[in-house]
Amino acid sequence: MRMIDLIEKKKAGKALSEEELRWLIAGVTDGSLPDYQLSAFLMAVIFRGMTHQETAWMTDAMAKSGDQVDLSSIDGIKVDKHSTGGVGDKTTLILAPIAAACGAPVAKMSGRGLGHTGGTVDKLEAIPGYQTSLDRETFLENVRRHGICVVGQSGNLAPADKKLYALRDVTGTVDSIPLIAASIMSKKIAAGADGIVLDVKCGSGAFMKTPEDAATLAREMVEIGWACGRKMAAVITNMDIPLGNFVGNGLEVAEAVAVLRGQGPEDLKEVCLTLVSQMLTLAGKGTEEECRILAEKAIADGSAFQKLKEMVKAQGGDDSVLEHPECLYEKAKVFAVKAPAGGWVQKMDAEGIGRASMLLGAGRETKEDLIDPAAGIVLLKKTGQPVREGETLAKLYTNRPDRVKAAEKTLLESCIIGEKAPEKLPLVFDLIR
Amino acid sequence: MRMIDLIEKKKAGKALSEEELRWLIAGVTDGSLPDYQLSAFLMAVIFRGMTHQETAWMTDAMAKSGDQVDLSSIDGIKVDKHSTGGVGDKTTLILAPIAAACGAPVAKMSGRGLGHTGGTVDKLEAIPGYQTSLDRETFLENVRRHGICVVGQSGNLAPADKKLYALRDVTGTVDSIPLIAASIMSKKIAAGADGIVLDVKCGSGAFMKTPEDAATLAREMVEIGWACGRKMAAVITNMDIPLGNFVGNGLEVAEAVAVLRGQGPEDLKEVCLTLVSQMLTLAGKGTEEECRILAEKAIADGSAFQKLKEMVKAQGGDDSVLEHPECLYEKAKVFAVKAPAGGWVQKMDAEGIGRASMLLGAGRETKEDLIDPAAGIVLLKKTGQPVREGETLAKLYTNRPDRVKAAEKTLLESCIIGEKAPEKLPLVFDLIR
Repeated sequence: MRMIDLIEKKKAGKALSEEELRWLIAGVTDGSLPDYQLSAFLMAVIFRGMTHQETAWMTDAMAKSGDQVDLSSIDGIKVDKHSTGGVGDKTTLILAPIAAACGAPVAKMSGRGLGHTGGTVDKLEAIPGYQTSLDRETFLENVRRHGICVVGQSGNLAPADKKLYALRDVTGTVDSIPLIAASIMSKKIAAGADGIVLDVKCGSGAFMKTPEDAATLAREMVEIGWACGRKMAAVITNMDIPLGNFVGNGLEVAEAVAVLRGQGPEDLKEVCLTLVSQMLTLAGKGTEEECRILAEKAIADGSAFQKLKEMVKAQGGDDSVLEHPECLYEKAKVFAVKAPAGGWVQKMDAEGIGRASMLLGAGRETKEDLIDPAAGIVLLKKTGQPVREGETLAKLYTNRPDRVKAAEKTLLESCIIGEKAPEKLPLVFDLIR
Repeated sequence: MRMIDLIEKKKAGKALSEEELRWLIAGVTDGSLPDYQLSAFLMAVIFRGMTHQETAWMTDAMAKSGDQVDLSSIDGIKVDKHSTGGVGDKTTLILAPIAAACGAPVAKMSGRGLGHTGGTVDKLEAIPGYQTSLDRETFLENVRRHGICVVGQSGNLAPADKKLYALRDVTGTVDSIPLIAASIMSKKIAAGADGIVLDVKCGSGAFMKTPEDAATLAREMVEIGWACGRKMAAVITNMDIPLGNFVGNGLEVAEAVAVLRGQGPEDLKEVCLTLVSQMLTLAGKGTEEECRILAEKAIADGSAFQKLKEMVKAQGGDDSVLEHPECLYEKAKVFAVKAPAGGWVQKMDAEGIGRASMLLGAGRETKEDLIDPAAGIVLLKKTGQPVREGETLAKLYTNRPDRVKAAEKTLLESCIIGEKAPEKLPLVFDLIR
């Protein structure tokens, strides 16, 4: 087989065969295909696309390009959740304990944050002592014993994706639905879960800007998953505004705890219940309606919160902080951001809030940056709420007072206050199975 | 400037600025731009194209990326001719002496053949002693003294083109009109002529298969040339059938001599007169009609043939062979190919004839192959002629009798004999200035 022929085929708009795609991914994995041929191929994919079948074959080959987590020693239908990345997205901290409390085992590998979006691993590390790196056997043992374990990605999962992504990043070939879908799904499939629920974000803080684009990506990923033998569901959720009111690592742990204790903001709770109902449905726990009731019960009877504490303790964390989680951020200095005008919050751009939070120390600009677990933002007003001039819009938490001015500017720039209440957008746009 | 931004711009279908294109070509030339970014850019050009202005800027930058031949020490308007490559194309050997005999100086660098097409340098080297590598000063001195010099390409002309072409060749990014046009024109412009006549071939033996595609390429190149301050004309000629009856290096020298002596086949003579009229017009020798009469006179009075002999002698060649050029091929063994059926020659595929000739030793499959100057094919029948079953279609000249069977097969496969005379196609499709 010759790479030039595969490039010409894709350039002409034809579909590659399974054999050709497996050969290509093998060449990516072992480094035998030169980058200049791969990048020409990727650019041809940008213009010509790939069929669902091609994308599924490629994803499967990528998933098998390195380690594959074997969860077969754990009883039951193991369910995983993946979010395409948002601001204030602490859903994993809420729905993993709920799912586990309802009897669906969760063996989850999460990522770190980069840029304006946060990562679950960084949030968990705000809890003193919590270990996000466990060896594979301890990881599995924890799931077998507690029904839940959330760690950072480890091992050599989907190395072909890592190489392809690095190349796409520098060759203008990121924005292709099949390539994005294959990248996400290859890692999820290698991670071994039987059922996967995708939380595909759309809006200003997300990669997909419209519900239609998000649904296209979601449909592609759901098809790939089923083609690779996994149970799949995808939920399209709104990321025009941050999810919940707390942004920042310790702050988000605290807000997650609040939801698990039956408090917390409605938007966050609603998205979590929607996602976890899908997870429980895939795990065979009943219909969507039945599963939603199960999840609500697990919150009401405290079993979900107990499951979070159990997980934290099992992974070396200090579970007592979860009883008074304000200790995770109260050492930071607090600065109030006042509304420059009165009216209604027309828009509160999630990406801008994420960048402001990063400036305060809650995120990384480069992979090497250190994170301050106490830094972040508490939003007192969100899109759709009325506000008076001079009223506090948000509180900034930071140990870097020198950054406050820039963060305030970024926050205010991302916030539009107008005379009328804006149109209310749904929180959940679509469900794709 | 960042290459990723240029890739994204082209991907989005926008035109690059002069500054961006010059920066890009500088990066190609000094090797600072990685191949994987260049190939992604080239693939985006395949899908998005380039404007005439972009192509002209890029060509100019490529032409200036290395040595530029300075012909200013030669009086008069120097004219050059470029053919996009054909089978049996010995026009340079005919029209360069005619132009020089009519007072238009020709300082020409020609190429070697590869694959099914021949190269002028290989044809000239069939003449014993002829030197195709002269130092720059001797080259210029010969033109000043004799009004003519034809050598192989030397020096570091358009190195950016060389690098880009090597990359395009392995990344499926060859077939783009602006990239082809920039590649050809950058070398021609660096070669220094004031006026350039392009012979753009179309048909089975050429890169461009239809007159329309050939005209598009020709128009692009003519625009680039004018934009770069050169006088331009392009002729679209038929390459469905080989030009003339002789294919092979020594054989083609002999056929060129025949035309210069007022003999030779009509098709070859007609194409040469069309091209040389354009060259003389660009050189300011009169209107097209006047120039054609001048050229015919130079053949009739023998001055063009004398000019060829003068050039050959000046470049160390044995000019006496031109008096009896059959000596250039008569040492080869000859094999007749008989018509398998009677009727009319419907088609005689130029590419197939070129490949058959290559098999006999007249061309190179790889750059390292040696050429047999005596090898080649004499076509006794061409498209449109009647033929009887068993009549000789062609004679194969070779010193490799083991190749005769394969060459005969290739030739017969490229030849269709049918019951009716085929539609007669024009020899010259179009003229673009």
